[in-house]
Amino acid sequence: MTGKVHLVGAGPGDPELLTLKALRLLRTAQAVLHDDLVAPEILRLIPSKAQVYNVGKRCGKKQIRQEGINFLMVELARSGLQVVRLKGGDPLIFGRAGEEIEFLRRNQIPYEIVPGVTSALGAAAAAQIPLTHRNTASAVVFMTAHRASASDAADWSKFVGSGATLVIYMPGQNYSDVAGKLMAAGLTRETPCAIISRATTRQQRVQRSTVGHLHRAPQLAAPTLLVVGDVVRLSDPATIAEELAMPNPEVGEHTSLPVALFNTFLSQSEAFEGDEGPIA
Amino acid sequence: MTGKVHLVGAGPGDPELLTLKALRLLRTAQAVLHDDLVAPEILRLIPSKAQVYNVGKRCGKKQIRQEGINFLMVELARSGLQVVRLKGGDPLIFGRAGEEIEFLRRNQIPYEIVPGVTSALGAAAAAQIPLTHRNTASAVVFMTAHRASASDAADWSKFVGSGATLVIYMPGQNYSDVAGKLMAAGLTRETPCAIISRATTRQQRVQRSTVGHLHRAPQLAAPTLLVVGDVVRLSDPATIAEELAMPNPEVGEHTSLPVALFNTFLSQSEAFEGDEGPIA
Repeated sequence: MTGKVHLVGAGPGDPELLTLKALRLLRTAQAVLHDDLVAPEILRLIPSKAQVYNVGKRCGKKQIRQEGINFLMVELARSGLQVVRLKGGDPLIFGRAGEEIEFLRRNQIPYEIVPGVTSALGAAAAAQIPLTHRNTASAVVFMTAHRASASDAADWSKFVGSGATLVIYMPGQNYSDVAGKLMAAGLTRETPCAIISRATTRQQRVQRSTVGHLHRAPQLAAPTLLVVGDVVRLSDPATIAEELAMPNPEVGEHTSLPVALFNTFLSQSEAFEGDEGPIA
Repeated sequence: MTGKVHLVGAGPGDPELLTLKALRLLRTAQAVLHDDLVAPEILRLIPSKAQVYNVGKRCGKKQIRQEGINFLMVELARSGLQVVRLKGGDPLIFGRAGEEIEFLRRNQIPYEIVPGVTSALGAAAAAQIPLTHRNTASAVVFMTAHRASASDAADWSKFVGSGATLVIYMPGQNYSDVAGKLMAAGLTRETPCAIISRATTRQQRVQRSTVGHLHRAPQLAAPTLLVVGDVVRLSDPATIAEELAMPNPEVGEHTSLPVALFNTFLSQSEAFEGDEGPIA
């Protein structure tokens, strides 16, 4: 009897940001194929009798090709095993799950996709940057600098001026390069940005800057994400390692909150306030 | 002693898509302020002695204003309680957490943001749509149609032609309206799209269409998301309630996978394959 492949998001780093479903599937897995970036604490959840394969594809390390991963998944499922394909973040965002799903379908292997907390959301929570904001950003773009070249500047310019927050996955270590591309796409030097390194882990670091000063920012350890846009001004200064050419955000006064006033607010509950519903 | 406010993402619907951290915080919460869209199974995790407030803001229902939510959070934390502000999806994506954070900071209330699986990722997993794909979409935009007006068409046109997948939160019940805006922004009638209703819950429905035929799609129950872009062609037909003007996706043949060939792939593990790393 054929087994099943579960394409599971492992979240941004902190093992506590695994979903309950990911935990259940890992604990009952008979075979696990995981990326390099999955935390050791998460891998320790896998039963000792399960087959475990590190199929990570990081630069410069021994690795397995995508075709090899596809074949391995199918072969393990054909032998009747419950297989977990564990990916950092969410499987459907820059995770190449699309290619793996096509291969599984073509080979008639039952599969299921289990979403996870994508790295951008972990990084934003870590740096306390609201990715959308009623007054500041009505959209957010997840993009990658990985294969950005001169010819991609036209694409990037599409997003600039849209009012969207930009989250760049895998911005690389050459901050001058990515800053140059952002400016070539039309962003001003004053646009705030933040590099978040190893978000949600104990090694997390946040570096706030501007596009114009980004080249001066210290190199932070991979994996990193770059968040670009006015919402970066709303990030908590306490989370920032070092300030580079950024004005201090407004720090308000302590506001007294009498209970009577608060109760008045509670009772004034008929008015419709429609902007930005609760789903996200 | 002042308590603390935890702004926690409840995920897209399925209680199993809560994070372990969200579960821990809910189980130890002394007060919970939650949105309407949080599932009853999740609310049942709250200890019976905790104070629970439904501060949902859905159209046409009795509700509490944003200021009231802010005051309530601060007042509960001031009284020394561990407070969970529970939001559907992720707090930093269309969740108005930015405004709540600013208020907490201004009032010197300790707080923490706990990311969650945003609805777009739940919907994509449900419909098996890779939001990014090496050959099809190098970026994804999360946006809302909620306050889209004629004057917003210019903004939407920024995203069209960028090659990005568009995910529209809260597209509303007027599919003609949103389709009209997409076409006004420059999308062709043939662009594939999918409406996902109540993703990851037992009531989940997926309706695939094209922008040109979207007005004929049946009304699905809120909350819904609209995914627009060529990646929709990659969705699993088995998840689709009804097909509207969409060609069948390629269904490949069963491929035989001899173990010897698979082992050859495994041993060919030195080549660097750099596109789209594992983080997401």
